[in-house]
Amino acid sequence: MSIFLRSTARATIAVMLLSATAVSAVAQDVLPSWNDGANKDSIVEFVTAVTTEGGPDYVAPGDRIATFDNDGTLWGEQPMYVQLAFALDRVKTMAPDHPEWKDTEPFKSVLAGDMKGVAASGKKGLLAIIAATHSGMSTAEFEKIATDWMATARHPKTGKAYTEMVYQPMLELIDYLKANKFEVFIVSGGGIEFMRPWTEKIYGIPTQNVVGSSIKTKYVVKDGTPVIMREAAFDFIDDKEGKPLGINSHIGRRPIASFGNSGGDFQMLQWAAAGDGRSLKMLVFHDDADREYAYGPADGLPDSKFGTFPQSLMDDVKGRDWNVISMKKDWKQIYPSQ
Amino acid sequence: MSIFLRSTARATIAVMLLSATAVSAVAQDVLPSWNDGANKDSIVEFVTAVTTEGGPDYVAPGDRIATFDNDGTLWGEQPMYVQLAFALDRVKTMAPDHPEWKDTEPFKSVLAGDMKGVAASGKKGLLAIIAATHSGMSTAEFEKIATDWMATARHPKTGKAYTEMVYQPMLELIDYLKANKFEVFIVSGGGIEFMRPWTEKIYGIPTQNVVGSSIKTKYVVKDGTPVIMREAAFDFIDDKEGKPLGINSHIGRRPIASFGNSGGDFQMLQWAAAGDGRSLKMLVFHDDADREYAYGPADGLPDSKFGTFPQSLMDDVKGRDWNVISMKKDWKQIYPSQ
Repeated sequence: MSIFLRSTARATIAVMLLSATAVSAVAQDVLPSWNDGANKDSIVEFVTAVTTEGGPDYVAPGDRIATFDNDGTLWGEQPMYVQLAFALDRVKTMAPDHPEWKDTEPFKSVLAGDMKGVAASGKKGLLAIIAATHSGMSTAEFEKIATDWMATARHPKTGKAYTEMVYQPMLELIDYLKANKFEVFIVSGGGIEFMRPWTEKIYGIPTQNVVGSSIKTKYVVKDGTPVIMREAAFDFIDDKEGKPLGINSHIGRRPIASFGNSGGDFQMLQWAAAGDGRSLKMLVFHDDADREYAYGPADGLPDSKFGTFPQSLMDDVKGRDWNVISMKKDWKQIYPSQ
Repeated sequence: MSIFLRSTARATIAVMLLSATAVSAVAQDVLPSWNDGANKDSIVEFVTAVTTEGGPDYVAPGDRIATFDNDGTLWGEQPMYVQLAFALDRVKTMAPDHPEWKDTEPFKSVLAGDMKGVAASGKKGLLAIIAATHSGMSTAEFEKIATDWMATARHPKTGKAYTEMVYQPMLELIDYLKANKFEVFIVSGGGIEFMRPWTEKIYGIPTQNVVGSSIKTKYVVKDGTPVIMREAAFDFIDDKEGKPLGINSHIGRRPIASFGNSGGDFQMLQWAAAGDGRSLKMLVFHDDADREYAYGPADGLPDSKFGTFPQSLMDDVKGRDWNVISMKKDWKQIYPSQ
């Protein structure tokens, strides 16, 4: 047994040496927006290890599952989640048909642009906004509404379309993983039908590889034509403990690589880490006030209502073989076009 | 507009003529277990039409979604659903640890082999059997239990393993669709975690392409190790109206080809039929008492508790462009090895 272990250890060292040689040459080609350093090396070394046939860490292509959170991991989430910006815009668009909203919270605050008032309405207020803007229509109608909005909405700070504010280094990472026969999934707290209309075009991730939160739906045949109606009740919240459950339900295999950026991603990475073989777990840390946003509250950065990265998570990660990606230090470029 | 229509019609006819020529040559190679005839021609003509670039019915690869029911469509479902046979066997295996079952229905009837008694316990009894045999363990434990059972269980009539009782013509159809860049999914009323351990090996359909009924799950961290526990409550029933909802939730695109065999598949095929372009909708009719089973009650065949094909469905299909596959006439061979 000890001979076997030693032999495995030797093989591991051999692969690591091979990988180290490969890192500098390969990484420059495949991850051009990543600065050289430990995180870029970790990615390339991991991918090399699990794709090296005969190596101790080899994983067959079908089991190379990678999961990415979306908000704050693949695209921005400040000053608020994109889907919340969508919901607030929808309230304004729909207001002429709802004169009663002028005197009813949380709509009154939304229409007055009073975000503190919206926040004061709490979870109940948020649910009322979601119900009013995300339900009562068919899935096809919602897809059109979301797509039309995405085509014209602009970020308040950059003036860019939200789909232009995806992270170039992560696009390269997705492509790199796919080129190495990983099956790449989004596992997001965001609404599954809010993401699906554009994930294939922007990320190269097709609808069936998008896992997200969902509301209840109902199959209705109207005048002989079936439609799927969106109802005003949550079906599944794909956050925290929900993420491994969503992965199990939707994918049915455990990821070997998982990427997030907040406390809501902890369980997803924990689930990936608990697999039998090697795994890669990375959290994006938004520490780049100049080029994007800086928020934590970990490491003394300002707190945030969206995508919170608590100090406890940062401390916890230090005791694990997880990587924290510093947006400031690790990313040469943030968006596809600067 | 009329010129455009005529031009489209001409193109359609041209493609049909091309397809008719192609049918005999291609079909013999790709669907050797299908007898020549209208149904085989329908399949090949449809696939040719949607994959012919520049043709009026062309569908891009990413939108070539095909969905298959499992029980009665891809494998047998008589004398009872395979999963029910599993559940009944589990009750027997678990009985020594549950002495109280000797006096408690529906377990008493199960242990006595009294299927009428089991049936008499109704839906409540069935739920009790499912709860006792399908919950209370982790997903990993359930996968092992299901896999071990599948490796040793044998069909009461043929003596074959259940995974040997998949339909050879459907295996060929799946391969043919995949070769033509279809993304193939199972959409079954069966338990999603009961199917996933073997669908890739037997059908070439990976876990993430399996949609099924599910029970509630819970993420639990035991001694620092996370597990997903199976709870004694249904989460989603993937049958009838549930099928299009499961397709929407899991796949996010409408199938252009859909295959079933019973009333439980009607809505799935109806959903496929309601798409914008061409679609293929096929129902397997079990009319082969000699080589498999014959049941309806449509067309005067005996009624069945499992996979019922009612006369109303047969009548309804006649008014639609759906195909009914006669197992007796259309299939040269039933199982992979005869």
